[in-house]
Amino acid sequence: MIPVVCIAGWSESGKTTFLERLVPELKGRGLRVIVVKHTHEDADCDVPGKDSWRLARAGSDAVVLHAGKRLMINTLLPGPLGLDGVLSHVVGDFDLAVVEGFHDAGYPKIEVHRRGSNQPIRSAGADLLGMVTDEPLDVDVPQFTSDDVAGVADLITRKLLNRRRRQPAQETASIGG
Amino acid sequence: MIPVVCIAGWSESGKTTFLERLVPELKGRGLRVIVVKHTHEDADCDVPGKDSWRLARAGSDAVVLHAGKRLMINTLLPGPLGLDGVLSHVVGDFDLAVVEGFHDAGYPKIEVHRRGSNQPIRSAGADLLGMVTDEPLDVDVPQFTSDDVAGVADLITRKLLNRRRRQPAQETASIGG
Repeated sequence: MIPVVCIAGWSESGKTTFLERLVPELKGRGLRVIVVKHTHEDADCDVPGKDSWRLARAGSDAVVLHAGKRLMINTLLPGPLGLDGVLSHVVGDFDLAVVEGFHDAGYPKIEVHRRGSNQPIRSAGADLLGMVTDEPLDVDVPQFTSDDVAGVADLITRKLLNRRRRQPAQETASIGG
Repeated sequence: MIPVVCIAGWSESGKTTFLERLVPELKGRGLRVIVVKHTHEDADCDVPGKDSWRLARAGSDAVVLHAGKRLMINTLLPGPLGLDGVLSHVVGDFDLAVVEGFHDAGYPKIEVHRRGSNQPIRSAGADLLGMVTDEPLDVDVPQFTSDDVAGVADLITRKLLNRRRRQPAQETASIGG
């Protein structure tokens, strides 16, 4: 399974904007990153009149477009999926899934907090790895400003990826011992 | 493997328009249908400014959006894929893939021909199941007008799907006999 980190937070906290800055930082470290976003019912990737839209409207259960290095798959599911179900549709060799939305999924979370939101922290206990915040908070996890994408990337790498990379070495030791 | 039929033909022959009419006919027969289309380099399903576009621009190797029953996966591949490579990315339970483009793939083909195109038939010998044409042609396969989507759907069902459905019965007979 691909390691997952959720970018949590209340509406309008700046999750997507933070993601836009975090992804290039992770990419700069040589990681192959996918972004998964739970969005609104009316969101649609298709532009009316384009072929993909025409073919989806014609009733296709899935429309698949391939051009150059781009592959776009637009599927009509029997019903909504949880995060694991969504990830089971992703084919390819990736190092990390960064997820926005799916707050109920039991994966490690970085929560984005904005001053004046008057909201409690959204992510519960053990899953919370750190906070991205513009004011100091009374929490037991590391806190970062939204400029500190390097710090957040360090935290994600240390908590989620080093462990994964260490496994082959441990297995070798175990076989040798 | 999912059964595949390619809708072949030269540019401007009316392949996409025919597909738009064929898909509802196949759907009306209770089939789960995917449409695969090879398109131009500059085709892009994203609308500038939307989140999926922002996250793809940020460098994500794949952007996955889920809303209601819709799942959209936009992947940046290491390089272009052939049809089998594209189909390996499609996850789900489907009965038939109807493909536009990928003329070189060795799958059964229905070719769409338009009068006055001054082009030879594009699909080679054994792969050609039938022609959709607005003028009589000197070919050894069934010919249909573009209105006769039912006839084309019958042909596809008979050639590609009945064979598949017959297999479990044959296996049973073999086990019993």
